[in-house]
This record gives sequence, structure tokens and C-alpha cells, in this order.
Amino acid sequence: MKYPPSLVALIRELSRLPGIGPKSAQRLAFHLFEQPREDIERLASALLEAKRDLHSCSVCFNITDSQKCDVCSDPSRDQNVICVVEEPGDVIAIERSGEYRGLYHVLHGVLSPMNGVGPDRLHIKPLLPRVQEGMEVILATGTTVEGDATALYLQRLLEPLGADVSRIAYGIPAGGTLEYTDEVTLGRALTGRQRITRN
Amino acid sequence: MKYPPSLVALIRELSRLPGIGPKSAQRLAFHLFEQPREDIERLASALLEAKRDLHSCSVCFNITDSQKCDVCSDPSRDQNVICVVEEPGDVIAIERSGEYRGLYHVLHGVLSPMNGVGPDRLHIKPLLPRVQEGMEVILATGTTVEGDATALYLQRLLEPLGADVSRIAYGIPAGGTLEYTDEVTLGRALTGRQRITRN
Repeated sequence: MKYPPSLVALIRELSRLPGIGPKSAQRLAFHLFEQPREDIERLASALLEAKRDLHSCSVCFNITDSQKCDVCSDPSRDQNVICVVEEPGDVIAIERSGEYRGLYHVLHGVLSPMNGVGPDRLHIKPLLPRVQEGMEVILATGTTVEGDATALYLQRLLEPLGADVSRIAYGIPAGGTLEYTDEVTLGRALTGRQRITRN
Repeated sequence: MKYPPSLVALIRELSRLPGIGPKSAQRLAFHLFEQPREDIERLASALLEAKRDLHSCSVCFNITDSQKCDVCSDPSRDQNVICVVEEPGDVIAIERSGEYRGLYHVLHGVLSPMNGVGPDRLHIKPLLPRVQEGMEVILATGTTVEGDATALYLQRLLEPLGADVSRIAYGIPAGGTLEYTDEVTLGRALTGRQRITRN
């Protein structure tokens, strides 16, 4: 027995999505087969409309459907802090924490020589003219090897511009127990300890 | 900051897919945002074409793009055996084993009173006229509670028609060790033991 060609094509396209292997793609395709036509049409047009409407903010490279994103066009945001993140999803995550009122800059990746990603593949160059002397730049790339390397690279670029460069804190996540925290995190949480007594 | 509406719509449609929660849907949407337009268009048209071309076989309810599926329209298949399975994916799995040359019947589900799935929601009625006296019907629904209940229900319907009804074997999966096999499987593997001596 052979798969019908349109089923083969659908499974192939679905398995190109990240985190979806051939088995999941097949399961998804069979699921979609059972859905009413309107649902499939809604999914297909959501895909096409998102691709048509969405692009990167001309200032910070966050996802937007306007020329400038919501954050960049909001004058009430603190214009003296820029938080540098890897991906648009990181902006959402930080906004959700409610702890930040400054601007963003989205790199769209991290430096990764192993995967052939050098500084030219990231939105690093447009960051430099945004940084003024005395401004704070928070490097909020991930605490992975690549995230750390990217932060170090940016630190070296930004310090000569007179920026006040900081790195998000390493530490124990909320709800974490010391027993189950890995030794690197624990070591860094100790080094980064914060004084709480006022004497 | 608010998500652009077309991003919200895409995330909502993606999170309706099985096994994809809001977080994965967001990650998928950001991934798709980074892809070239042609890739998105290929995915969208694969969805629409699959929905347009594919339907259930008029005889066995397997997925096909013709009126009758490849198996039903192949005269070299053994017309005296019908293997009853839950989903079209099960047909693929059995075909891949290379152990079966008969016909299929796809129920498109299992009996599940808890989820409101009674016999009328499955393709059980069209199975009955296919079963002739002396024919073998292999009940290959899953070895779950619902799969077993469905097999029992079908057995009671098919026996009065004079069919030779069988159930796929329970047992230790290939490569399995007894130590790590659960007690239900082990008990059934013992009950279903097969004689290998010829005395």
C-alpha cells in the first residue's frame, strides 16, 4: 500500500517544523484529516496572514505588524535602558514578568561558530547606534555556552561606547531546592549573593 | 506590549493541534516567522490540498485519494480476512510489518463511553455486510481498556454472522526483558504461550 501523494506532501511539510519528527507529523496529518474543512482553511490562512502582516521592528527587531513595535513606539518606556535578547519570544517572557519598563533589542539568534552563526548573522550592527553614553544595556541572552559567549562579545563592543553593561542574574529559579540544583548554577548563585542586612 | 493580531491568530490555530500547547504554538509561530515566504506557502497549500484530495475509502474507511483505497482495489489481497483497526495510522503500521496480506476496516476511534463515543460514532455498521460466513476477522484495536472493550463488542456482533473472530496476540514486545515487563503483559504472555516442540 502506498500513501496518497497529498498525504505524503502534508507529512513532509509538517515534519519540517521544529520538534516535529516523522511520527508526530504523521499523527498530525491524520488528525487534520479528521477535522472539518473550515478548521483547515482557518489554519492555512492564519499561516499566510501571519507571514504577510508580520515583520521585524525597524528599530529593535521585535515582531510587529507596524513599522515600529509597541515597545519602541511607546514614549512612556524608559528610553535609557536596552535589554538585549535572543528571540522575540524572550521579549514576551520578560514583559510577562512585569519587572521591566525599558526598551529591547532582539538579536534573532546567538553566536554559534559550530553552526556557522557569526556576528554578521545577528542584528548586532543596528544595536550600536542605539547605545548612548551612560545608557544601561542589559545582556539577557540565555545562560548557555552560546548565550554567555554572545554576551561577552557584546560587552566588548558596548563598553567602549560608554554604556553601563549588565548581565541578567544567574541563580536558583523560584521554587528551586538546593539539593536538586546543578553545581554550576549553585556556584554562580553563591558568587552572585546579594546583601540583605542594612548594617 | 500586545501581540499583533495575526500572530495571536496563528498561535491560536497552532495550539488547536494535538500535542501542541500554548508554549509550543508560540515557539512554532516564531519559527515560522523566520522562514522564507515560499516555505509557509508550501505548508499552507499542502494543508489545503490534503484536505481537498483525501477522504475515507468507501469500503474500509482507510485514507485514500481515490474512491477505493489501494488495499481494497488490489485483487491480489486475501479477500477472506479483514483486520479491524482503530485509525488509518494503524493500517500503515501493519503494512510496514509485512506480515499481512488481507483487507482492513478502519473504525476511526474506539468505544469510549467516558468521552461520549458510542458504537454509532464509529464505522461499525458498514463492517457487518462485509463479513461473510467462514471469513476471518482479526480484531486489532489497541490493548487498552477501550481497545479491549471495542474488540469484545465487535466479537459479539460478528460471531452470529459465522465469522472466525480472532484478537491480535498480547505478549512481550520484541527486544523486551521479563524483568521490566508489567505484570498484566507478563500474565497474558504466559496465558498466550505457544507450543514450539513437535512431539
